[in-house]
Amino acid sequence: MEHWSETLAAWMKWMEEGKYLQLREELNEENPANIAEFLEELPADKQLFLFRLLAKDTAAEAFSYLDNDTQEMLVASITDGEVRDIVDEMFLDDTVDFLEEAPANLVNKVLRNTDRETRQLINRFLRYPENSAGSLMTVEFVHLRETMTAGNAMQIIRQTGLDKETVYTCYVIDPKRRLVGVLPLRTLLLAEETATVASLMEEDVISIHTLEDQEEAARLFRKYGFMALPVVDGDHRLVGIITVDDIVDVIDEETTEDMEKMAALLPSDEEYLKTPVTKLAKNRIVWLCVLMISGTLSSIIISGYQTILDEVVQLAAFIPVLTGTGGNAGSQASAMIIRGMALEEVRPRDILLVLGKEVQVGLICGVLLAALNFGKQTLFSPSTDIMIDLTVSVTMGAVVVVAKGIGGMLPIAAKVCRLDPAIMAGPLITTVVDAVALLIFFHVAQWLVL
Amino acid sequence: MEHWSETLAAWMKWMEEGKYLQLREELNEENPANIAEFLEELPADKQLFLFRLLAKDTAAEAFSYLDNDTQEMLVASITDGEVRDIVDEMFLDDTVDFLEEAPANLVNKVLRNTDRETRQLINRFLRYPENSAGSLMTVEFVHLRETMTAGNAMQIIRQTGLDKETVYTCYVIDPKRRLVGVLPLRTLLLAEETATVASLMEEDVISIHTLEDQEEAARLFRKYGFMALPVVDGDHRLVGIITVDDIVDVIDEETTEDMEKMAALLPSDEEYLKTPVTKLAKNRIVWLCVLMISGTLSSIIISGYQTILDEVVQLAAFIPVLTGTGGNAGSQASAMIIRGMALEEVRPRDILLVLGKEVQVGLICGVLLAALNFGKQTLFSPSTDIMIDLTVSVTMGAVVVVAKGIGGMLPIAAKVCRLDPAIMAGPLITTVVDAVALLIFFHVAQWLVL
Repeated sequence: MEHWSETLAAWMKWMEEGKYLQLREELNEENPANIAEFLEELPADKQLFLFRLLAKDTAAEAFSYLDNDTQEMLVASITDGEVRDIVDEMFLDDTVDFLEEAPANLVNKVLRNTDRETRQLINRFLRYPENSAGSLMTVEFVHLRETMTAGNAMQIIRQTGLDKETVYTCYVIDPKRRLVGVLPLRTLLLAEETATVASLMEEDVISIHTLEDQEEAARLFRKYGFMALPVVDGDHRLVGIITVDDIVDVIDEETTEDMEKMAALLPSDEEYLKTPVTKLAKNRIVWLCVLMISGTLSSIIISGYQTILDEVVQLAAFIPVLTGTGGNAGSQASAMIIRGMALEEVRPRDILLVLGKEVQVGLICGVLLAALNFGKQTLFSPSTDIMIDLTVSVTMGAVVVVAKGIGGMLPIAAKVCRLDPAIMAGPLITTVVDAVALLIFFHVAQWLVL
Repeated sequence: MEHWSETLAAWMKWMEEGKYLQLREELNEENPANIAEFLEELPADKQLFLFRLLAKDTAAEAFSYLDNDTQEMLVASITDGEVRDIVDEMFLDDTVDFLEEAPANLVNKVLRNTDRETRQLINRFLRYPENSAGSLMTVEFVHLRETMTAGNAMQIIRQTGLDKETVYTCYVIDPKRRLVGVLPLRTLLLAEETATVASLMEEDVISIHTLEDQEEAARLFRKYGFMALPVVDGDHRLVGIITVDDIVDVIDEETTEDMEKMAALLPSDEEYLKTPVTKLAKNRIVWLCVLMISGTLSSIIISGYQTILDEVVQLAAFIPVLTGTGGNAGSQASAMIIRGMALEEVRPRDILLVLGKEVQVGLICGVLLAALNFGKQTLFSPSTDIMIDLTVSVTMGAVVVVAKGIGGMLPIAAKVCRLDPAIMAGPLITTVVDAVALLIFFHVAQWLVL
């Protein structure tokens, strides 16, 4: 790490000092992800200059690692010829990634600089729904026929391998392009030259349909530890592959989405610092309004028990700590269940198991918290009526049990109703638990204090 | 997917009907991840029986996909000879994974059934700190020398490749075993037989130190899209590699940990359904107590302004919706910043940028919510004093701005102080925001209502 930040500083210095030839020579040997990072660190007016300094293939490779804004700026600034060079060198999935986010004029600029075949492919890709397996795949894979020998196959890999995203997993198709087998390069390497592909390949191939969600692809990669996954169309024809490096991005995206939903945010693909303030506000205001309106329920409940508060106004002081503790207890449970369902460790059929566990956990935590609260109150606030302390403690214990139960059930119930479990987490659960906590509180108070 | 659940049902049926030979034949051709899933679905008394039905290598492969409980049950039940067979076939990192969680008697059973060399290796691995790159790596990699030719190298891969976790990325070491280069199999395949490894390899190898955190490994995989990452010791000697399939697990683990912390849970590696109730309660009670105690701050503030409540008891009805909205607004901000920092999109030096953005977002959301609340109150609760409505609305606007600011700053401040940003999220932030909301509320009330 030390090393890389020093390198970055050195490049910056060369850039300032105008040592462009030296820089060019070094960059063309460098990892494209590092070049992209360097480029993004440069002031906007130097980015284009540096990009043009790079060799064609290096430029194309670095381009695919750049963030969308920089990509768009570059494509907008370079000539048609330069666009053609980059698109020629890039893997199709990276081009499509760029086009999915780019404004129309840049999409046109790219499309008019690609050959007809690539253009058709790109158009087909752009029609796949966002977050589908089809939108994630690449078409640069090695395909073999059953009748080939291992020797033939190796020849094909040697001849075409440079342009393929991976050569380490080869797929076998029949004359109708249907997927019939998979053959890891490792097996090919260890095989006799004359063995047929049919005899070497694995026939039971796990594949995914173009229209399936990328989450399903991530699940398959997790379960089987694949390096690549074939994508098939409705007729089981092989149309592309998904590679594991793209799945890392999918997993990051999906978790960010879950976290955002759990924090009452509309999910967004954009990086925080690059999202305009109005967009950020838009993503947040929806849930804030919904929750404020539903939070009115608490006000209604409190107003309904106004007479109790009129009589014992000190009770009001304990409302936040009771709703707060209930909210925390509920969120703890729902967060565990939501994450457990995302990782397929908890399934809807486990609902009663979950309820049983949560009630038990709630009882343990509830009794401890109630005792702690009672002790704290009698020790540090001896002036408070002991019946008020008792009311708060009893309520706290009961709220924790109920909150745990609701927190455990809500996400599963959501899943069963085909709603999103993550949405049922943090925000919604606190609203429900707040209302329940207040109802318990006032009932216990009526019983113990009045 | 249909297909797989049908297969699973068929196997279950064969198991019940005693068609063991048929089952054995089918399973030995099957993907080990599927066998593991089938085995875990079986009742405990059938698991051992089925496991013994499998061919040696299939059994070992399936074993590495099993969850810890099933692994422990099997190792406890099988003979020493069977243990030896499994350990011989398994990759070292999978064995170490099992041993890290296993009870002492099973660790001994495994260690006494391995040869001296493996035992020494395992012991070294078990000494690496949990979650370090060293604890994650495997030693089954292909290493080459600079003086070899491409032909020699291919020969070595053909001879030893079967026992290596990956043959697709080969590492070049000098006579002192120091890492000097990396050579993808793809390059080797396309090279002349007589070219030397030195001329083909990439010299600038990105590697990780054994003691570095697995999060750093995940960061490198994310940035460079690697399939494998070499692990070196203090003298830059190559001691192992980390493969991308293990990184998917790391990413899942790290995000689960962040989510747990954000939901006020002590992080735990165990699956929810397999964690005993007492352990679940222990992981939750700590934060519940801390937050309840710190929540007392709200009670103190409310008691301090008791006179205001005595006079206008209706104000109490709005406490939950104000603290709730503040908490939601703050959590939205902190969740975005925490996730942004985890994905390296937000850095501590961006702190002022974040503050500026959050205050602006807060102003937009705050004004909208205040207006919405005021409209709602005057329309639906016309009986309430308009000055109370105004108090609540003004407070709400102010609370949202402050909560956004705090939510944006707290995680960054935590990071700067080398504390965990995720802990500063959900739970702690609501406590702080609750107190601030109440102070604002009572001050505005004093000004507008009294």
